Amino acid sequence: MKTSTSVKPVLALTLGDTNGIGPEILAKAMERLASTLPCPVIVFGSLSILESMRQFAPKMPALYKLESLDAFDPERDGVPVYEAGCIPPPLRPGTLDAQAGKCAATWIEAATKAALAGQIQGMVTCPVNKEGMLLSGCPHPGHTPMLAALTGVSECHMSLFSDQMRIVHITAHLSMADAVKAVTLDRVLCAINAGYATMRRLGFDAPRIAVAGLNPHAGEAGAFGLEEVEEIAPAVEAACEQGIRCAGPVAPDTVFQRMYAGEYDLVVAMYHDQGHIPFKLVGRDEGVHATLGLPFIRTSPDHGTAFDIAGKGEAQAGSMCAAVELAAQWMLQYPENKT
Amino acid sequence: MKTSTSVKPVLALTLGDTNGIGPEILAKAMERLASTLPCPVIVFGSLSILESMRQFAPKMPALYKLESLDAFDPERDGVPVYEAGCIPPPLRPGTLDAQAGKCAATWIEAATKAALAGQIQGMVTCPVNKEGMLLSGCPHPGHTPMLAALTGVSECHMSLFSDQMRIVHITAHLSMADAVKAVTLDRVLCAINAGYATMRRLGFDAPRIAVAGLNPHAGEAGAFGLEEVEEIAPAVEAACEQGIRCAGPVAPDTVFQRMYAGEYDLVVAMYHDQGHIPFKLVGRDEGVHATLGLPFIRTSPDHGTAFDIAGKGEAQAGSMCAAVELAAQWMLQYPENKT
Repeated sequence: MKTSTSVKPVLALTLGDTNGIGPEILAKAMERLASTLPCPVIVFGSLSILESMRQFAPKMPALYKLESLDAFDPERDGVPVYEAGCIPPPLRPGTLDAQAGKCAATWIEAATKAALAGQIQGMVTCPVNKEGMLLSGCPHPGHTPMLAALTGVSECHMSLFSDQMRIVHITAHLSMADAVKAVTLDRVLCAINAGYATMRRLGFDAPRIAVAGLNPHAGEAGAFGLEEVEEIAPAVEAACEQGIRCAGPVAPDTVFQRMYAGEYDLVVAMYHDQGHIPFKLVGRDEGVHATLGLPFIRTSPDHGTAFDIAGKGEAQAGSMCAAVELAAQWMLQYPENKT
Repeated sequence: MKTSTSVKPVLALTLGDTNGIGPEILAKAMERLASTLPCPVIVFGSLSILESMRQFAPKMPALYKLESLDAFDPERDGVPVYEAGCIPPPLRPGTLDAQAGKCAATWIEAATKAALAGQIQGMVTCPVNKEGMLLSGCPHPGHTPMLAALTGVSECHMSLFSDQMRIVHITAHLSMADAVKAVTLDRVLCAINAGYATMRRLGFDAPRIAVAGLNPHAGEAGAFGLEEVEEIAPAVEAACEQGIRCAGPVAPDTVFQRMYAGEYDLVVAMYHDQGHIPFKLVGRDEGVHATLGLPFIRTSPDHGTAFDIAGKGEAQAGSMCAAVELAAQWMLQYPENKT
């Protein structure tokens, strides 16, 4: 791999489950973004399957097979595809397949290793099928636990970004009973810090952060629930002492509306649906999912494999395009990536 | 009180906390709706305070003092105000006051008794200050528990209505920890039935009802949380067996978006913020709060006393107008009110 201080950071794009809409939205996104992408990319996936998506994206840039990451030349025309020694099954859109799950996991793992080795600086992941990954023997049900395990990170935060809404969650795929117990001072403060650091990298000098309460009306001073008094308010106070502009706990049923109206730049949400419900209601086509707290940047489109429409050419690439653009913007803001 | 089979049902309007924005929005709503209201109204409140709001609503219909409910004559011009023997303190907008709380509670109680006696058929309540009510010695922190206690109803359901969103909650002001435990088959089924009955009265012959899950992704078949499998799905099944068009449990982070897009007419929400967050995000000015399960109709504007803007003439009456219109529409659909 050529290296020099003037080389731009590199973005990995993982193909996900080949029987889902991942290959199609990746092809469409590359077609749409080809001339505007500010950094080189490497696809971690199958060349033949991605090439077969040209039927839906005829102007997708030319692809070529990258035999090893060391051979990557950012100056070479076309998009390199690194297969990581994994051959997916024949394309059967919409079908659950253990081998497709194995490939999806292999490509994520290869991209993660490349990130830890400094060969790529950011990652955009196409959707995987959790069941397919588990069927293949992969112990991780989805991207976030897999990325956390591979990088040894104990706390990473699912987050959502659109033009008007930016939301960091303190927990993700827990039952509500467990999510309530997970509202602790440490976890709230960790999410505030992760959100603050990300916003700074995205160009917000002094982001206005609001922390949602957990309970209705933020508990009305302890009348229904003590988490605001005992955990959330102290976390907000600690963040303010660090110099972060941070308000809260704010009533959950108005804080998202207030962000949407422009009063806040980012909201820290206390559980998965507290953030996902408002985001999906108004952030539809351009929504991006990101994982904060990893040692590298990772974004993804805000939807799943959509097996029901896979292979039909109907998939919308708006969220995938936004995921690539956000990752690129964010990556280029890293001090260590500024040349 | 004159009664005859041709008399229209009567709507009570309670004035709420006089130091909040209740009197102002009631005056503005009566000004705006004067010529279009399909039923007679009786205000339960203070004549002098409501009259003083004419500065903000110069075309509010003339008011007159109603000495007793038996003296009510729906044919008489102007709007009757029944004070129920309660004299509020001098107007001090934005001030917490035990006597204002006492009056607010007295008017609700008087209107409830009138409803149970058949003297009124529906009620629209202006906002109260819970603290003020408790200070006055009233044991009920707000409308819903007070109405439930006065009518002996054990289960009533907080609900929200706008043109595009209709939401019934199975619980309201509980901590999230308690709300999770309150997700039971019986309570879910009770809310489905209450929502179904209301929608029928509002003119939906076969309303399309969706029941939200409690956990992220509706628990993914028990992977995180068993409430969907053990409580919610059986309730949906029981409702379907009764002939109700009812789907679910649906993933909470898409069900409101799907209703907003027209796929469902009503969603049953598993806790306060699950419904309030999406509703407040998109249903802002025209949102109406309603209590289902009482022996009479009760709606209210979807906001509180707004002490910060009380007395300034800045309060928006859109939600109050919508609350009056919804109550009137709903009341006139009651079979026993059809003449």
